[in-house]
Amino acid sequence: MKVDGQDIRTIWLDKDKTVVKIIDQRKLPHEFVIVDLKTVDDAITAIKDMYVRGAPLIGVTGAYAVYLATLNAPGAHIDPDYLATEADRIKAARPTAVNLSWGVEQVMSAIARQTESEKKIEAARIAAGAITEQEVENCRKIGEHGRSLIEQISRQKSGKTVNVLTHCNAGWLACIEHGTATAPIYAAFDHGLDVHVWVDETRPLNQGTRLTAWELGKHGVKHTIITDNAGGHIMQHGMVDIVIVGTDRTAVSGDVANKIGTYLKALAAWENHVPFYVALPSSTFDWNIKDGINAIPIEERDPDEIRYVQGVDHNGATSVLICPPDSPAANFAFDVTPARYVKGFITERGICKATEEDIKRLFPEKE
Amino acid sequence: MKVDGQDIRTIWLDKDKTVVKIIDQRKLPHEFVIVDLKTVDDAITAIKDMYVRGAPLIGVTGAYAVYLATLNAPGAHIDPDYLATEADRIKAARPTAVNLSWGVEQVMSAIARQTESEKKIEAARIAAGAITEQEVENCRKIGEHGRSLIEQISRQKSGKTVNVLTHCNAGWLACIEHGTATAPIYAAFDHGLDVHVWVDETRPLNQGTRLTAWELGKHGVKHTIITDNAGGHIMQHGMVDIVIVGTDRTAVSGDVANKIGTYLKALAAWENHVPFYVALPSSTFDWNIKDGINAIPIEERDPDEIRYVQGVDHNGATSVLICPPDSPAANFAFDVTPARYVKGFITERGICKATEEDIKRLFPEKE
Repeated sequence: MKVDGQDIRTIWLDKDKTVVKIIDQRKLPHEFVIVDLKTVDDAITAIKDMYVRGAPLIGVTGAYAVYLATLNAPGAHIDPDYLATEADRIKAARPTAVNLSWGVEQVMSAIARQTESEKKIEAARIAAGAITEQEVENCRKIGEHGRSLIEQISRQKSGKTVNVLTHCNAGWLACIEHGTATAPIYAAFDHGLDVHVWVDETRPLNQGTRLTAWELGKHGVKHTIITDNAGGHIMQHGMVDIVIVGTDRTAVSGDVANKIGTYLKALAAWENHVPFYVALPSSTFDWNIKDGINAIPIEERDPDEIRYVQGVDHNGATSVLICPPDSPAANFAFDVTPARYVKGFITERGICKATEEDIKRLFPEKE
Repeated sequence: MKVDGQDIRTIWLDKDKTVVKIIDQRKLPHEFVIVDLKTVDDAITAIKDMYVRGAPLIGVTGAYAVYLATLNAPGAHIDPDYLATEADRIKAARPTAVNLSWGVEQVMSAIARQTESEKKIEAARIAAGAITEQEVENCRKIGEHGRSLIEQISRQKSGKTVNVLTHCNAGWLACIEHGTATAPIYAAFDHGLDVHVWVDETRPLNQGTRLTAWELGKHGVKHTIITDNAGGHIMQHGMVDIVIVGTDRTAVSGDVANKIGTYLKALAAWENHVPFYVALPSSTFDWNIKDGINAIPIEERDPDEIRYVQGVDHNGATSVLICPPDSPAANFAFDVTPARYVKGFITERGICKATEEDIKRLFPEKE
């Protein structure tokens, strides 16, 4: 994607193929810092300390971490026990991230098919690269399928600005390129459609304000930050044409777990006849869960994420207490939007309704 | 109300009757500072710079400002032209605040009925005090009527904790005592009912986090701060028994203008069968407006209220930028909740449905 006119991804292998480059996302939007990952420890720190975040990006970082393990293996031959230990260390960096284990295992399998060290290194690099390209391709396809929805609205509005509302950051920063919820927006923009994005700030961690606003701005897409409170009002007044959000886990029944606050936007969209879409690679479907509201566990995070806000003042980056020092807070990280409020899913294979039947029409191998 | 065991109001006349005392609410919750108003200029600064906020409190401060004008009048006799000029200056401190003009006019009328300076001063003091007590009494009655709702839920739950959700600060800090939305909560608490309050932080200005959490905590009421995003999730999971909010203006048809985000909570309450009540003194009804959504103008405020967050760090009070420096933001300050989502109004005369017919049953003089 574009950053100050340059094409960039969230992760890439440097020309000499010994250094993995990432954006230190902790510093956004106030600083744009590229960090070199040269060792497994570098990669573990990047994953654990959230230099990188977002399921696809964490998976790819894990994959490249295994490649770094092969590069830095001690001795002339790569010891399988050494590699297995390193793989376990990488997977433990964020133990609940399914994509991380998956990315690591994919590269480990590719290595296991080789015997010579040079071949193992090459196989790891090719496998990590292939995972990367697969993620990019999934997001690109989501973008193409979702673009058709924006084009249709644009035609209905005779080319006038299409207003999209999104929540949290399901952007290219969470992926490699394109993003999930943002992919249709970028695809529409790159095709010359007039598109404007309402960016929910997404309390408590402000992923909208910090990340979505930054990446849209850098790519040149018109956008406006609003408080999470404002979505109902602007939908009521016809200022939103379509809502597109991402998801952390989606039940095969169509219930959608996503960042806390998504459910409130879905209710407002339903009430005001605004189509509410969820963009996702099919890896995000949970094929076993039929009742999202009762079966998807909702993480409660540290209340201090609410009590303190990160930002910059004249002294630089800081964190400010915004409530009475003794007031308790509860930090529910996700909520579940019932399938009936979801107009459709935008997947890499096309668009489907939020019903088990229609999801499995696109993914018949899951029957 | 209680602050660290002491009974306190938001405004009061000092014992020697020459100084008006207020809480400097700009410094809450990090500092509790009481400020002396000795002159009209002091009072104008307090109103204009928002040491005091909330319609009832602004009205009472304006009333006492006129009293200060009589006290500080130059010469032996109080010149009516001097008083009229001072009254205009006070009313101009926040020109859109209807209660401010009303409070000033009430005291000016009382003064006009007197001829001697001493009598004018006494009349001003008595009138300002009467307005104060009227506001307190309205809030007390709202509290008593609303308490019956909480008592009923408490009985249905066999005395288990009643969970109330509120948005913004319609608390005693916006009034003199009790508050409006908080009045039923304090009344229930003071009667020994087990009550807990979910406090919406209320972006962008965080009135929930800064003021509601502070006043509930100081009075000893159990409460938990949540992000504005969380209300849907906790209602979906049965963690809210009743929603009570305030209002800035309510159409006679029952449509409710209140702090941005109220509408989203009303939708979630409706969806999850949680009763949604609005507490208000009848002065907040707009008897001329039948279509709240289209007829009530929604103020757009400075986007920097979203882009910067106030708080304290190790260097003291500061304001931090939370978004890219060039990202635009839109700051809609209020929204309108359609009457059909409102279970009822809690007024000083009792509880009524959100219909013109039932509102006028309580206020037949408005027919």
